[in-house]
Amino acid sequence: MHSTLSFSQATTVPTTNYAFHSQSPINLRFCGLRREAFGISILTRSSSGRVRLSTRGRSKRTSASTGNNGTPPKSFDYDLIIIGAGVGGHGAALHAVEKGLKTAIIEGDVVGGTCVNRGCVPSKALLAVSGRMRELQSEHHMKALGLQVSAAGYDRQGVADHANNLASKIRSNLTNSMKALGVDILTGFGTIVGPQKVKYGKVGFTDNVVTAKDIIIATGSVPFVPKGIEVDGKTVITSDHALKLEFVPDWIAIVGSGYIGLEFSDVYTALGSEVTFIEALDQLMPGFDPEISKLAQRVLINPRKIDYHTGVFATKITPARDGKPVIVELTDAKTKEHKDTLEVDAALIATGRAPFTYGLGLENINVVTQRGFVPVDERM
Amino acid sequence: MHSTLSFSQATTVPTTNYAFHSQSPINLRFCGLRREAFGISILTRSSSGRVRLSTRGRSKRTSASTGNNGTPPKSFDYDLIIIGAGVGGHGAALHAVEKGLKTAIIEGDVVGGTCVNRGCVPSKALLAVSGRMRELQSEHHMKALGLQVSAAGYDRQGVADHANNLASKIRSNLTNSMKALGVDILTGFGTIVGPQKVKYGKVGFTDNVVTAKDIIIATGSVPFVPKGIEVDGKTVITSDHALKLEFVPDWIAIVGSGYIGLEFSDVYTALGSEVTFIEALDQLMPGFDPEISKLAQRVLINPRKIDYHTGVFATKITPARDGKPVIVELTDAKTKEHKDTLEVDAALIATGRAPFTYGLGLENINVVTQRGFVPVDERM
Repeated sequence: MHSTLSFSQATTVPTTNYAFHSQSPINLRFCGLRREAFGISILTRSSSGRVRLSTRGRSKRTSASTGNNGTPPKSFDYDLIIIGAGVGGHGAALHAVEKGLKTAIIEGDVVGGTCVNRGCVPSKALLAVSGRMRELQSEHHMKALGLQVSAAGYDRQGVADHANNLASKIRSNLTNSMKALGVDILTGFGTIVGPQKVKYGKVGFTDNVVTAKDIIIATGSVPFVPKGIEVDGKTVITSDHALKLEFVPDWIAIVGSGYIGLEFSDVYTALGSEVTFIEALDQLMPGFDPEISKLAQRVLINPRKIDYHTGVFATKITPARDGKPVIVELTDAKTKEHKDTLEVDAALIATGRAPFTYGLGLENINVVTQRGFVPVDERM
Repeated sequence: MHSTLSFSQATTVPTTNYAFHSQSPINLRFCGLRREAFGISILTRSSSGRVRLSTRGRSKRTSASTGNNGTPPKSFDYDLIIIGAGVGGHGAALHAVEKGLKTAIIEGDVVGGTCVNRGCVPSKALLAVSGRMRELQSEHHMKALGLQVSAAGYDRQGVADHANNLASKIRSNLTNSMKALGVDILTGFGTIVGPQKVKYGKVGFTDNVVTAKDIIIATGSVPFVPKGIEVDGKTVITSDHALKLEFVPDWIAIVGSGYIGLEFSDVYTALGSEVTFIEALDQLMPGFDPEISKLAQRVLINPRKIDYHTGVFATKITPARDGKPVIVELTDAKTKEHKDTLEVDAALIATGRAPFTYGLGLENINVVTQRGFVPVDERM
């Protein structure tokens, strides 16, 4: 096998600082987002001599290696093709250009991937607004500060637009930074069709095939939804949908009390929802550092309209339809017996994320995934 | 000379993080303030075995050395006396106890010194409130977030109380942390009367004299007021007065555009004042890193009701009296000629800070200060 495979698994890591001003948020860092994402000129990098502005005029790198699928390419369209233009792919692309490689990046959805579009960025935007909302509604808090406010509320669409506008701005900066450095952005879903060969294209259009000496897989992750749960995107949703804030339910069940569930409980309770956590393990936030989970319980759970069921699986969730609410069937995690049935206005499935490798054509280069993951050695 | 003299010059260093919630601000760090200042139990430190809870039962350390002023003490009341219970003295006291020294701290004003009472802590409290005020008053900003607020204002006394309450809470935590560790807090203005000998007492009361093997001077600093400026504490003020926020003038001249002046321009403009900076050098914020001053100019100066005179000294400032405003005489810094006269509602003198060593009795141990500073070698 002649392709070098690297796997960049972008997951949403919560960040704690949010510069809350209308000026450029220059201190923001989400996941591995580089300065370029925030519209800080890359020309200053260029002027330091570290980044070449364009590598388009350079002669292509070639390889004398031969592939093993019929007619192997002897020269390549690119030195490097990156599949996936999330923050992992973006960082890899900028680094590759810095090292003098002719680089293309293939994106089937939107530049910025999960972090910018369906993760860190919009979630932190929602958290910032909901934090303000919580302050404004606390008479005690405002009075303690010496501030006076009469009647505070929010406009759901306005809050949603704020998150979307921020994502859109960063998305555009990411795109521009790659274009300015001469990275080719190829639009369409990428599939590896053989060693050093990738096809990409939009549904309904003819596929294009490009070749490269090396390929980086940076396709990130997608929400993991357990069996028995029917996601309709309206009343039974994942974080992908929740971040659009199309609807603020009176009562929402959040399945999973990891950081994704916890962030949304913060947003929803600030906007007026009541929250019920459903957690399979015996306590909330089981993956957290114990000191942090204790603090989170005291500050983010106890004082709010949040209750919880622990030690139970949500084995079946049916979306609201025909005037009926969302039905959540709870099963005891140990005895596997039916325990309870909840009727709620919405359910958010926050049970973690899974690698996004389906349809990537890994079988064409004899890579066998393990639960979606690409097995790698310590040198990737 | 048998006393070991150390000099801790506490100056107000601006901090940028302010946890803006009614919960305990556990991430706050002001100057060198230790965890204890924020009410985090010192018992956890003790339980780690690093800190002894009390050293009162231990035998006193003695010294065979003899002093040079008549009857030198052969044994001492304390191993260590610290003059000044600001954050420098507090840190030194805790460290001394940790090392097993019987320790006393002498404070003539309030525990916490400049940082807690007249510097970092209340200024950050005011900045936090004024930042919120600025947001609430920006229709564009609130709308961009999807938040709706009708009529926002502030209660000056409430804002002042907020800053004072925060300082008071931290002051009390500092005091308790020292008491719990067995540090004797001696109240009164401390004066060195000879080697290893300090007197302290309140005005109008008999002085007490205590002896110690070593003395640490941690008396910090006070606002520096240039000649010709008459501070009345009402209309011509220093940061000591301004932090009490007894008055929000319509128009305030701020003499000096260092970080202290800049912080107050932020507070006053948010609360509705117009600000005029008076800076002796040719540009604002002359001591700042150029990139930071450029950013500050763009974000903190230009969009606000702030104008400035540079290259001028405020050679004479007269407080408002008999119905007349504050008069500020400006002199050209180069030609030394009279340049302009301003009539304003108030003037804040923010021309830096000077060591507080006057009255400390340094002459009694033959220490000659240099512009108020105690000369030290590289080993203090």
